[in-house]
Amino acid sequence: RYFHFCKLPGRVMGIRLLRFTSVVIIVLLLVAGALTALLPNIKDDKMPNLRREPKTQSQSALDSFTLIMQTYNRTDLLLKLLNHYQAIPHLHKVIVVWNNIGEKIPEEVWNSLGPHPVPVVFKVQTVNRMRNRLQNFPELETKAVLMMDDDTLVSAHDLAFAFSVWQQFPEHIVGFVPRKHISTPSGIYSYGSFELQNPGFGNGDQYSMVLIGAAFFHSGYLEDFQRQPEAVYALIDETQNCDDIAMNFLVAKHTGKPSGVFVKPVDIRNLEKDTNSGYSGMWHRAEHLLQRSYCVNKLVNIYEGMPLKYSNIMISQFGFPNYANHKSKM
Amino acid sequence: RYFHFCKLPGRVMGIRLLRFTSVVIIVLLLVAGALTALLPNIKDDKMPNLRREPKTQSQSALDSFTLIMQTYNRTDLLLKLLNHYQAIPHLHKVIVVWNNIGEKIPEEVWNSLGPHPVPVVFKVQTVNRMRNRLQNFPELETKAVLMMDDDTLVSAHDLAFAFSVWQQFPEHIVGFVPRKHISTPSGIYSYGSFELQNPGFGNGDQYSMVLIGAAFFHSGYLEDFQRQPEAVYALIDETQNCDDIAMNFLVAKHTGKPSGVFVKPVDIRNLEKDTNSGYSGMWHRAEHLLQRSYCVNKLVNIYEGMPLKYSNIMISQFGFPNYANHKSKM
Repeated sequence: RYFHFCKLPGRVMGIRLLRFTSVVIIVLLLVAGALTALLPNIKDDKMPNLRREPKTQSQSALDSFTLIMQTYNRTDLLLKLLNHYQAIPHLHKVIVVWNNIGEKIPEEVWNSLGPHPVPVVFKVQTVNRMRNRLQNFPELETKAVLMMDDDTLVSAHDLAFAFSVWQQFPEHIVGFVPRKHISTPSGIYSYGSFELQNPGFGNGDQYSMVLIGAAFFHSGYLEDFQRQPEAVYALIDETQNCDDIAMNFLVAKHTGKPSGVFVKPVDIRNLEKDTNSGYSGMWHRAEHLLQRSYCVNKLVNIYEGMPLKYSNIMISQFGFPNYANHKSKM
Repeated sequence: RYFHFCKLPGRVMGIRLLRFTSVVIIVLLLVAGALTALLPNIKDDKMPNLRREPKTQSQSALDSFTLIMQTYNRTDLLLKLLNHYQAIPHLHKVIVVWNNIGEKIPEEVWNSLGPHPVPVVFKVQTVNRMRNRLQNFPELETKAVLMMDDDTLVSAHDLAFAFSVWQQFPEHIVGFVPRKHISTPSGIYSYGSFELQNPGFGNGDQYSMVLIGAAFFHSGYLEDFQRQPEAVYALIDETQNCDDIAMNFLVAKHTGKPSGVFVKPVDIRNLEKDTNSGYSGMWHRAEHLLQRSYCVNKLVNIYEGMPLKYSNIMISQFGFPNYANHKSKM
C-alpha cells in the first residue's frame, strides 16, 4: 500500500508541496510582521522629544502622571496655573475638580484657546466638599497622581525631579510641604511645623506627614481612600479640612513606614494674593491649625492607634540649580 | 467497679488532690517567672542612655557598626582620629588595618591611655596593599561597616545621620563623597567629579559612585569582594588605587541600581596638612585621576559591561543644624 502511495503522479505532489510551502512562508511573514508591530518603542532618553509621539497606554501609565487640581472661587488662579502646569514634562492629563457649585466650567474659554498639550477634564461637583479631590476618577490612567492646590505654583524643574524621586519611592507621598505631629505627656497629640518642639529622636527636626496639596502619590491610594471608615469622611466634611492628614494616616498604615518623603523645593510660590476673587484659602481661618490637631486625635481614635512615623530625610537635586551645590569644604 | 473507685477514703483523695494542685501552682509560677525573665528589654528611645548596657549580639549586629580604618605612615593622624571616632554613637568596634609593614602597632600607647569606649583591633599586614582594608575580617560582627580614610574627619552628627540613612538603604554605599564616570563618543569612559560635563539626563549633575573612604556599607560586600575575578585584585595592586571604584562596580552589579546614596556632609575635614609625617596621601600623585579613568575602563572590560548607574538624589538632615533649614519662601 505504501508503494502505491509513493507512486502518485509527481506533478500532483509537486503542486501540493508548492502550495503548502507558499502557505507556510506567507504565514511566517504575517507572524513576523505582527511581532514587529507589537515590539515596544525603545525611546532614547538622551534625545529631546521634539514632537510628542503618541504612546501606548502601558508606557504612559508608568512614565507619566495625572495632575488633579481642585478649585473653588479662584478661577483666575486656576487658569494661570493651568497655563503653567499643562506644559510640565511627563504630564499625561489634567483633572480639574470643579467645586464651584452651579457655576459653568470654563470649557469654552479653554477650548477657544487651544490646542493644548494635554487633555484637561473638568469634573463638575454637586456639593462643595474638600474631599471631592480624593475620588477615584475613571479618567485617571496613570499610576502616579500629582495633586496641587489651586493657589500653588511649583516650578517645572522641581516637579520633574520630584516625579523621578516618586518613581524610586512609589509607595510614599513625595512632596514639598512637610508637617509633623507631636506627642504630649497627656497622650494628646498636637499638629504643626518646625515651630513645634522636635520630637526628640536625636538631632534636628522630624516630619511625619507630607501634605498632598503639592505632592506625588500612587493612584492606588485614591482607591484605598474609598474604603475608609465612615467616620473619616464625616470628620473631613465636618471640618472641611484634614483630608491630607487622613491620607497620611492611610499611607502610613499601609506601609508601616513614614508616609512621606520630603523633597526640598527650589521654587514654590503661593499665588493667593494674586487672585481677584478676594478669596484667600481655608488655612486663613482662625481655627485652621486647631482643627488639624483635633483631626489628628480623632483619626487616632478612628484608626485605634497612631500610625504616623517620623522621618528626617530631606532630598535635594544633586548639582541643581548650582552645579556644585554638593561641594564640601574638605 | 466505678463505684468501688469512688469509695476510696476521702482523706487520701484529699491529700493527693492537694499535692497535685500545689505542684501545678508551683509549675505555673516557675513558668511565669521564666517568661518574665525572657521578656525583651523595652528601651524608651527618648531617654538618654546614661550607662551603656551590655547588649546581646543580635542587637549590636543591627544597631551598630564597625569602623574600619586603614593606615599608612600617619600614625599621628590615626591616633587623633581614633580619639574622635571611638566615641561615635552606635560604634561597636574599631578595626585598624596596619599597613606600616615591620613597624610596631601603637598598642602599648593605646592601652596605657585606656579604658576606651569600644574595643580596637590592630590588624598587622604583611604587604602594604590598598586592598588590605577590603578583607573579610573575622572580628567584624556587625552588618554595617563604616570605612574611613586615615586623614578624614567627619563629625559625629554627620555619621549618626548617615548611619540612620544606611539603615534605610542597606544595600547601598551611603557616604559623603560622590563621583561620576562619563561616556565619550569613542566609548571610552572618563572619571571625575562635578568639574566634568553632566551626563545629560535632564537638569543638574549626576553621580555614579560614592567613595568608600568615608561611607557606610553592608559587611556582606566584603565577603563578596573576596570572590571577584583575579584581574580586579591585579588592577588594584598594580595601581595601588581604585579599590573603591571596584567596590562600586560590585555593588552596582549586585543591586542593578545606583551603587551609592550621597549624604551631604555638614562637617567633613581633611587633616592631611596636620600630619608630622610629611606624607600626604595617594591622591596627590600626578597620575592619580588618570589612573582612576584607566581603572573604570579596565573594570568595564573585566566585568564585560558598565554596571554603574546614575543618581541625582542628595540627602540632608531635616532641621539640622538649622531647625528651619527646609523652609521655603512660599
